[in-house]
Amino acid sequence: MRPSSWRSISLSSNVAGTPLGRRSFLGLGAALTGSLAIGAKPANAAPASPPADAPWSQSLGAGVVDRPYGRPADTEAGVIRRNVPWLTAGAESSVSFSPLQDLHGIITPNGLFFERHHAGRPDIDPDQHRLMIHGLVERPLVLTMKDIVRFPSTSRIHFIECPANGGMEWRAAQVNSLQFNHGMISCAEWTGVRLSTLLDEVGVRKEAKWAMVEGADGAHMNRSLTLDKCLDDCLVVYAQNGEALRPEQGYPLRLVVPGWEGNVNIKWLRRIKLGDRPWFSREETSKYTDLMPDGTSRGFTWLIDAKSVITFPCPEKPLTGPGLYEIRGLAWTGNGKVKRVDVSTDGGVNWQTARLHEPVLSKALTKFTLPWQWDGQPALLESRAIDETGYVQPTIAQLRTQRGTNSVYHNNSIQTWQIKPDGSVFDVQLA
Amino acid sequence: MRPSSWRSISLSSNVAGTPLGRRSFLGLGAALTGSLAIGAKPANAAPASPPADAPWSQSLGAGVVDRPYGRPADTEAGVIRRNVPWLTAGAESSVSFSPLQDLHGIITPNGLFFERHHAGRPDIDPDQHRLMIHGLVERPLVLTMKDIVRFPSTSRIHFIECPANGGMEWRAAQVNSLQFNHGMISCAEWTGVRLSTLLDEVGVRKEAKWAMVEGADGAHMNRSLTLDKCLDDCLVVYAQNGEALRPEQGYPLRLVVPGWEGNVNIKWLRRIKLGDRPWFSREETSKYTDLMPDGTSRGFTWLIDAKSVITFPCPEKPLTGPGLYEIRGLAWTGNGKVKRVDVSTDGGVNWQTARLHEPVLSKALTKFTLPWQWDGQPALLESRAIDETGYVQPTIAQLRTQRGTNSVYHNNSIQTWQIKPDGSVFDVQLA
Repeated sequence: MRPSSWRSISLSSNVAGTPLGRRSFLGLGAALTGSLAIGAKPANAAPASPPADAPWSQSLGAGVVDRPYGRPADTEAGVIRRNVPWLTAGAESSVSFSPLQDLHGIITPNGLFFERHHAGRPDIDPDQHRLMIHGLVERPLVLTMKDIVRFPSTSRIHFIECPANGGMEWRAAQVNSLQFNHGMISCAEWTGVRLSTLLDEVGVRKEAKWAMVEGADGAHMNRSLTLDKCLDDCLVVYAQNGEALRPEQGYPLRLVVPGWEGNVNIKWLRRIKLGDRPWFSREETSKYTDLMPDGTSRGFTWLIDAKSVITFPCPEKPLTGPGLYEIRGLAWTGNGKVKRVDVSTDGGVNWQTARLHEPVLSKALTKFTLPWQWDGQPALLESRAIDETGYVQPTIAQLRTQRGTNSVYHNNSIQTWQIKPDGSVFDVQLA
Repeated sequence: MRPSSWRSISLSSNVAGTPLGRRSFLGLGAALTGSLAIGAKPANAAPASPPADAPWSQSLGAGVVDRPYGRPADTEAGVIRRNVPWLTAGAESSVSFSPLQDLHGIITPNGLFFERHHAGRPDIDPDQHRLMIHGLVERPLVLTMKDIVRFPSTSRIHFIECPANGGMEWRAAQVNSLQFNHGMISCAEWTGVRLSTLLDEVGVRKEAKWAMVEGADGAHMNRSLTLDKCLDDCLVVYAQNGEALRPEQGYPLRLVVPGWEGNVNIKWLRRIKLGDRPWFSREETSKYTDLMPDGTSRGFTWLIDAKSVITFPCPEKPLTGPGLYEIRGLAWTGNGKVKRVDVSTDGGVNWQTARLHEPVLSKALTKFTLPWQWDGQPALLESRAIDETGYVQPTIAQLRTQRGTNSVYHNNSIQTWQIKPDGSVFDVQLA
């Protein structure tokens, strides 16, 4: 699945099925871009002389440290996080969605990492911030940021996904947007201290089985975690993609609970209390539980099951005429590594195995691609992730059979993108 | 080398050699931080009740998309790229250094990625930008950004280092700073098209052996590359850490030449011409060559040999009193993967193997750490990288024996940090 060149790709296994000749990529693709007319002298054939100088090639540009801390090009001003004003009562307890349609690779830049706040973004003085660790421990402690940074450090690349990602679509397809339907997932390199190191420092008492983790925001956001997970791979982090956490991501201190729902990845972390039972806090009883068809609720459903989505094409990035395209997408699982991603162009009747791009890391976004010859006919694009445990991403119909339609959280179903003959892309659900 | 907890780390192999008892990390480290007095009730022992609410815990913070594109906390305003005004005639042909002393992990955030311009930073309209590929090719082409983004994409994490990094220290230690002595290296996830894919599209003629690659900046920065390297792993990239390239990193299009000196990683890429011999351009004759003791020059010295540096402690981040510390650093090599990093605390007499942190990626930064019990005595900290080819990072004395002291480029020698009894850290060179 790693052709040495685009020309040599054989699409004989593709649904469209037409083997491609020389220059088929540009030749077939350029009909609507205007850069190449098939059968005529290519409009993008190069002249004999070098390109004429644009204005910016004829003058000095800005000097170094013109921007000591950089920012994107002005022409990228449309690449931003966005919210849905009607979704919540106010912006302080709301979400912003990452613009997945404009992103590439597995790292989300810090400026575009999705947000979820419950009482807004506090701006914290790191010199005054403290982390208390107490409860069923031998030596309760209050740690400063300087203390924490001095402990042995670990860096890891992990995704964080809000379990409400896709939560607007339990009953019907209604969000015709990649950004708003899937944009509550992001991925970064986190640096901090293993929680197990801190717990070893305070000494875990043998009765301890649970931890309550709490933020310093106005919501005092707090959740219960099993001690096993705390000791397994949780990180108390102070840096994200190399630099200090951003304020909206928990500056100066955040808990990262790899592979578990975003809400337990407590931002502005100020307290960890060990106990022998869960706390049943507001955010794990009235919220972040799943109302089942029989009236009971699933609780403590922390795990993010395997999920994937095609990021190109998508409603925001339609096709521009028949031709050869690269289908691109992201897959992830809280269970470890993504093992395989299948892609269908006919609504799940036939599947092909996509190429996974290295590095494939545990509990991190994984990029996948598949070449696709679009013949201009209607199509139904889908991707499904299979993780290293063998778990297969379900359809929305399969999820509804299990959980009904009262849920908000943990909709990890297959996304179907309907391609219309004009290349436009629509969010649909199949029966 | 991966202790399950800090308490259980045995430092018996350490130079300082003292096995550590319970709570030795905080206990020994806190003398100057004021958070814990040895033998007394710890000042950071936790009280029975939860922490008092800070002002930011008593109110609503800012809502989501308060900053649709985020920025660092105001309290991190000192974490910026910096330049050395006297180093060059003007800021348009100069460098800015990345603040390695404040960074963590292997990803450099885009806002802090070092800069090197030769005619300043052009601000380019991506809709007008073109890439011409011509010369000894079958089908010369001019490509738009839309054309390029449509080709099969690849994402990879690679470092870029200016070969002048450390170039002020060929004759003597004179840069008492991690940022200014080593800050011309950064690392990011790049997304784009393999150059081999584009060359396959235009058809390489059999006489072609070299490529001239040229930027659209006012300098028309251009360099010669071997065709073999172009076909091996070069990328024509449009994205960095997930988002579009930043203007100072080549927006909208840059060449990434993994493991080769920064200067050939042409920014604002506008032209690739194939030929049968190198071009001997200004920047590969009068610059980016190495004047040897016998008066000849080494040319086409593209490869970044194995190198490493301890990023903590460093002149900007001194020690704060005797105790247990984690020595932290970065290693890299243009030859592939870092195989091992050794650390010395006595100026290279004794060496210990540091822990390499996953993922260890080819031609990417690799993080290393080693616990160190500092007894308050003078020390000489060094790290040396060994790469997968067996190449060992040299001392400055060894480099001078080979290359004399007329060079500017490719100083990949071992950095020595002198630790004084007060914990301060100085850049020194050993005889």
